[in-house]
Amino acid sequence: MSFRKSRQTFKVTKMFTPEQINFLVRKGLMSLDFNKEPQNLYEPMGYMLGLGGKYLRPRLCLSAFSLFSDDITDEILYPAVALEIFHEFTLIHDDIMDNSPTRRNQPTVHSRWNDNIAILSGDAMSIMAYRYLALCPRERLQDVLKLFSDMAMEVCEGQQKDMDFEEQPFVTMDEYLDMVGQKTGALIACSAAMGALLAGAGEEKVKALYDYGYNTGLAFQITDDYLDTFGDPVTFGKPIGGDIANNKKSWLLVEGLHRAKAAGRHAEFTGLLTLPEEQREKKIAAVTQLYVDLGVRDAASDAILECHSKALAALEAAGLDSAQRDYMKNFAESLIHRER
Amino acid sequence: MSFRKSRQTFKVTKMFTPEQINFLVRKGLMSLDFNKEPQNLYEPMGYMLGLGGKYLRPRLCLSAFSLFSDDITDEILYPAVALEIFHEFTLIHDDIMDNSPTRRNQPTVHSRWNDNIAILSGDAMSIMAYRYLALCPRERLQDVLKLFSDMAMEVCEGQQKDMDFEEQPFVTMDEYLDMVGQKTGALIACSAAMGALLAGAGEEKVKALYDYGYNTGLAFQITDDYLDTFGDPVTFGKPIGGDIANNKKSWLLVEGLHRAKAAGRHAEFTGLLTLPEEQREKKIAAVTQLYVDLGVRDAASDAILECHSKALAALEAAGLDSAQRDYMKNFAESLIHRER
Repeated sequence: MSFRKSRQTFKVTKMFTPEQINFLVRKGLMSLDFNKEPQNLYEPMGYMLGLGGKYLRPRLCLSAFSLFSDDITDEILYPAVALEIFHEFTLIHDDIMDNSPTRRNQPTVHSRWNDNIAILSGDAMSIMAYRYLALCPRERLQDVLKLFSDMAMEVCEGQQKDMDFEEQPFVTMDEYLDMVGQKTGALIACSAAMGALLAGAGEEKVKALYDYGYNTGLAFQITDDYLDTFGDPVTFGKPIGGDIANNKKSWLLVEGLHRAKAAGRHAEFTGLLTLPEEQREKKIAAVTQLYVDLGVRDAASDAILECHSKALAALEAAGLDSAQRDYMKNFAESLIHRER
Repeated sequence: MSFRKSRQTFKVTKMFTPEQINFLVRKGLMSLDFNKEPQNLYEPMGYMLGLGGKYLRPRLCLSAFSLFSDDITDEILYPAVALEIFHEFTLIHDDIMDNSPTRRNQPTVHSRWNDNIAILSGDAMSIMAYRYLALCPRERLQDVLKLFSDMAMEVCEGQQKDMDFEEQPFVTMDEYLDMVGQKTGALIACSAAMGALLAGAGEEKVKALYDYGYNTGLAFQITDDYLDTFGDPVTFGKPIGGDIANNKKSWLLVEGLHRAKAAGRHAEFTGLLTLPEEQREKKIAAVTQLYVDLGVRDAASDAILECHSKALAALEAAGLDSAQRDYMKNFAESLIHRER
């Protein structure tokens, strides 16, 4: 599979449109074969990838690639697809750990099959990710592998910290941002950086794309936390207020507790957090109102925009022209101006 | 870390002694640092590697390497150690799936911590294995990575088949050998082949070492199954008869059912298999006796020797001298003439 745009004089014409990139990613994902034995291993993998999704990570990788090169061959497409495979592996295992019954409105792998099958098909997906990663151009393999494995270890560390937070009474904003940076930021950063790396961009440019991706990842996650409370129930795709109901240490909760203390409303807030599951709706409504009163809602919007600005500032070192900057700006904005 | 033997004229002197190799493997494993944050991620990894074990896979890798080269640098040692890290990852996840409370007389990771921590620290160990693998000489990376990932996928397939067997009323010997070849044989084969590959041996020699390892792996697993029933309770290190008590589809059970049918004792055998846990000791004693009566015990010994012979025959294509053949023969024999 190769998809080469005709070469033009102007740098700007190198870039693929978002639609072209979307098409390529879907083509790459569709070429994966899960119709293999043993069925209990491969079917859950195909099921998970078939649940749909934004395919944000491979799209970002190819978008970053297309800033520096216009030749998306299999050697580029498959490592990009590996990012999605890795992401879906982490979702399968996270869903077991969080005991989540559904994802994207469908049963999770462990609830449709069982925990053992979910553990093992997740393991196999992580290996599959490495297999597709290894299809990258031979001369880039060592660098790509290091970037990827460093990221993968960060994701594990972030997930463990997220689980540890459940046992902690209080989490600071620095701790939250560190955790989210590892759990979510690192993979999005790696996706952008890998695109540049695969295109042969120099170290400084790869680093610029990494920082762009990292901050975009933070903006993405804070948006996620924001939508869980303030999203539109119709478009969000899952019930609003889940984070509040579960006392999830989200950006809103961390900032909210901090502000409640300063405003002398700490006892009120922690009182709401102890409301039992039977008073779920009351709890969600009251905490949501408190977030608005304390300015947490507006502060979250500001934090998202601040991360977005940092992402764009990081791009300065990538030596892009204005069309290319707009291209990456649009990509990042599609992640924060979303409803699900 | 480098360990170079003085060069000698005779090929045989290239080989490291088993003690030297054992020392190197332990040195490599001891250099791993698990004193990191988050503790709940890294501590279980260090715990698992600290439980001891035979370190068979890295030892085999370095032994195979030493047939063709005498320069065990970090670039060779760390990929060998990666094999052990990968193996321990599979044990952590297998222990969750099998709900095993102990391993090597110590609590398993999931029973000492919990399932979530065991899932995640296992994931991190599999990534760590790839990290250490990637430290191999740059020019070998692509081949090493392919060998390793192909193996890793086979191990997952084998584990799934093993779980599927629990639901099947009957398993043929071909199905059993296929499963065991993937679950156990592939990693031991990969260990031997990787040693040759890292030393720059040609394709035919790498293949010879692979086949040697594969058949040695089968012999190793059948020996495991044999010892579970016929081992010495004092030296075996875990209770004898666990496979019988759990109706595990071991080599003995598969062969036993086949022979019981032919001998008109099928109903007797399947009757014993339905005995409840309260009659555990009676069941173990009766099935063990039946295995002896039906010649299953002797057949298992023969099967182990047959695999061992195949392993040695496979070595013919490796172009070894007689001292080198003896060296690899001794390695394989240490795995089948064991008591635990």
